Amino acid sequence: MDERAALTLLADELDPVGDDAAIVDGLVVTTDMLHERTDFPAGTTRYTAGWRSVGASLSDVAAMGAEAIAAVAAYAAPEFDREELLGFVRGASDVCESVGAEYVGGDLDGHDEFTVSTTAIGRTTDPVRRGGARPGDVVCVTGTLGRTAAAIAQFERGDHERGNDLFQFEPRVAAGRALAPHATAMMDSSDGLARSLHQLAEASDCGFAIESDSIPIDDAVFETTDSEREALDRATTFGEDFELVCTIPEDDVAAARADTPVALTPIGSVLADGVSLDGDSLADRGYTHG
Amino acid sequence: MDERAALTLLADELDPVGDDAAIVDGLVVTTDMLHERTDFPAGTTRYTAGWRSVGASLSDVAAMGAEAIAAVAAYAAPEFDREELLGFVRGASDVCESVGAEYVGGDLDGHDEFTVSTTAIGRTTDPVRRGGARPGDVVCVTGTLGRTAAAIAQFERGDHERGNDLFQFEPRVAAGRALAPHATAMMDSSDGLARSLHQLAEASDCGFAIESDSIPIDDAVFETTDSEREALDRATTFGEDFELVCTIPEDDVAAARADTPVALTPIGSVLADGVSLDGDSLADRGYTHG
Repeated sequence: MDERAALTLLADELDPVGDDAAIVDGLVVTTDMLHERTDFPAGTTRYTAGWRSVGASLSDVAAMGAEAIAAVAAYAAPEFDREELLGFVRGASDVCESVGAEYVGGDLDGHDEFTVSTTAIGRTTDPVRRGGARPGDVVCVTGTLGRTAAAIAQFERGDHERGNDLFQFEPRVAAGRALAPHATAMMDSSDGLARSLHQLAEASDCGFAIESDSIPIDDAVFETTDSEREALDRATTFGEDFELVCTIPEDDVAAARADTPVALTPIGSVLADGVSLDGDSLADRGYTHG
Repeated sequence: MDERAALTLLADELDPVGDDAAIVDGLVVTTDMLHERTDFPAGTTRYTAGWRSVGASLSDVAAMGAEAIAAVAAYAAPEFDREELLGFVRGASDVCESVGAEYVGGDLDGHDEFTVSTTAIGRTTDPVRRGGARPGDVVCVTGTLGRTAAAIAQFERGDHERGNDLFQFEPRVAAGRALAPHATAMMDSSDGLARSLHQLAEASDCGFAIESDSIPIDDAVFETTDSEREALDRATTFGEDFELVCTIPEDDVAAARADTPVALTPIGSVLADGVSLDGDSLADRGYTHG
């Protein structure tokens, strides 16, 4: 069974809707595990790893439209270097501070490979789920897409400083809170825009028509490619950008954009079925978390 | 830097008191990472692993005297076998149900070694911390000690069924809630009784005089040893029993015992300094989590 099949099995067992975070007793809770081989390219600092791993969980809280309260991390490594450990904690603390949450520590574990498991907790009385998109709604995305693809390209060419800079994304907690009263469905783009749309389509039993000209591609993508087509592909399928993808009733889009503290870009509309880009079927292709 | 030094570094950075769980905004939060090599002997079923790993985090919630609300787990393995995964989820769900909490799922990760990271969340308005023990208080422990040492011995002799049975401990959430109004300090015995006493002594700036005759040794310990001395050592230093160790003012002990739904055994008293067993210094020796 591959990881995706296993996730589906677990989802059926535990949470048929498959939201970004579980909801229990007015709290939202989410956990993620990341590790060196698949998630932290050579050159990633421990500060960035702390920021990014805790940020990934905070992004799930954001995707529920919830306030972020706290995060913890378990840090596993073959050895514990003082500077690395402090760097990790500072990154984790800083990303929490950036969204008004508290980093409250965690656990350490000896392990062959650097591995981080993070949990974030939020609070909301009115969570936004994945299942509420309705035909006629407008699909919107926060910020820009392709930033992580750009970071990986920079790590690969050896510009670790730029790679680390691009890897430190801002979890969209404030945007998620602002969008909560407007959005009919929401999730984060951690698996890439294409896969996120397919997941929303399945949860809401709807379709999407996306226009490629509208997709906000991060300028950084063009630091490592001149091809518009390649840039679009990176922005659409690479994933791990941790932006919010949401659907909003058409007559509420202007108000939502005014309320949201980051750019909110309409990229298409909700249909009865099918997921398309410029009229062509958009494959359910993207990042499979390793 | 070994793991203990690293934990001390982190504790100084994040939480000078070093309680079993962090407290934030009326919630208690705790996370643990366990892995095959050091935590799950050959023969441990995935059901037991789910029960035990999530139970370890619930035990930290219990140690704060809090109500347990929810738990999540990240499950990492080289491959995802349907029965193993479902077994894990059932164990995790069952241990949550046993303490009135909800198991709300988690994450999956491909990994060379079976690794589990768990987080539990509780709620309390009046957490019991480690720092409140006062000379004259009575030291008490819930349940019995040595059960995990007995389990390991059974795994080693090849009785996996007995090992799994002993490995499925009951997190003391109800006992922790009942003890909260009485206890001046509390923690769980995950590092063993000896180390727990030293940690309480440090947090409360006090000492302890323990009487070995009073220590409630689990009957299961004698399944694999006939030596009283060896049994006492296993109960005192092996750890991972997840019982609660607490201090209670002398004139409140009877009421605390009446309120607590499991056996609560007085094992000694709080002094100004020193940690002793039958008058001899008790070394700060126990389980170092790998």
